[in-house]
Amino acid sequence: MPSAIHLASKLDQFEDHWAPRTVSTFNAFDVMVVKVKGEFVWHSHADTDDFFMVLKGRLRIDLREGPVHLGEGDLFVVPKGQPHRPVADEECHLLLIEPSGTQNTGDAQTAAPRQWV
Amino acid sequence: MPSAIHLASKLDQFEDHWAPRTVSTFNAFDVMVVKVKGEFVWHSHADTDDFFMVLKGRLRIDLREGPVHLGEGDLFVVPKGQPHRPVADEECHLLLIEPSGTQNTGDAQTAAPRQWV
Repeated sequence: MPSAIHLASKLDQFEDHWAPRTVSTFNAFDVMVVKVKGEFVWHSHADTDDFFMVLKGRLRIDLREGPVHLGEGDLFVVPKGQPHRPVADEECHLLLIEPSGTQNTGDAQTAAPRQWV
Repeated sequence: MPSAIHLASKLDQFEDHWAPRTVSTFNAFDVMVVKVKGEFVWHSHADTDDFFMVLKGRLRIDLREGPVHLGEGDLFVVPKGQPHRPVADEECHLLLIEPSGTQNTGDAQTAAPRQWV
């Protein structure tokens, strides 16, 4: 019998930062939760938009044209090809949606491996 | 300058039920908010999974095999082709993601027109 996905319980299962965990699939996408803290690398995804929603805490997404500030419950979609850098001064919990197989840095060498939780 | 999408502010802009408002696009998808109350119709989408996340309140999604109960912050993806009926005893606010152009009932005759907010 299927059941709802309780995101807070999924987030309780790990502590590491910048290592997204897949909680569901949606068409050809992975729906993921991630804990972040500090600065990620500047990167872009040539073939997909990048979906961010803040579940807990605050996130800044630096774009070339300036920063976007997200509070709890806010979302932002970075258009494909647009360089961006997520930054969280304090730990922040996010919902991410990316095509299955997308590398989180846009670079196979530095990307975190995809894991389910 | 782009800014974050504050979902609560978007939801403050309308009162009607079962009439999703698009707040962003994500690849070929519409990201939408909707207020629901009562029973929707049984329906299915032949070509897409159906993404539900509860932003406020509680939602039951009836499936042929039984009900799925979602509380605030929970999500559920109904697999494509699977008949389902969303039900909310009290008003409930949802985040939905569907391919752009998808009819919310799976039937052009009864579907709500797509609107931005």
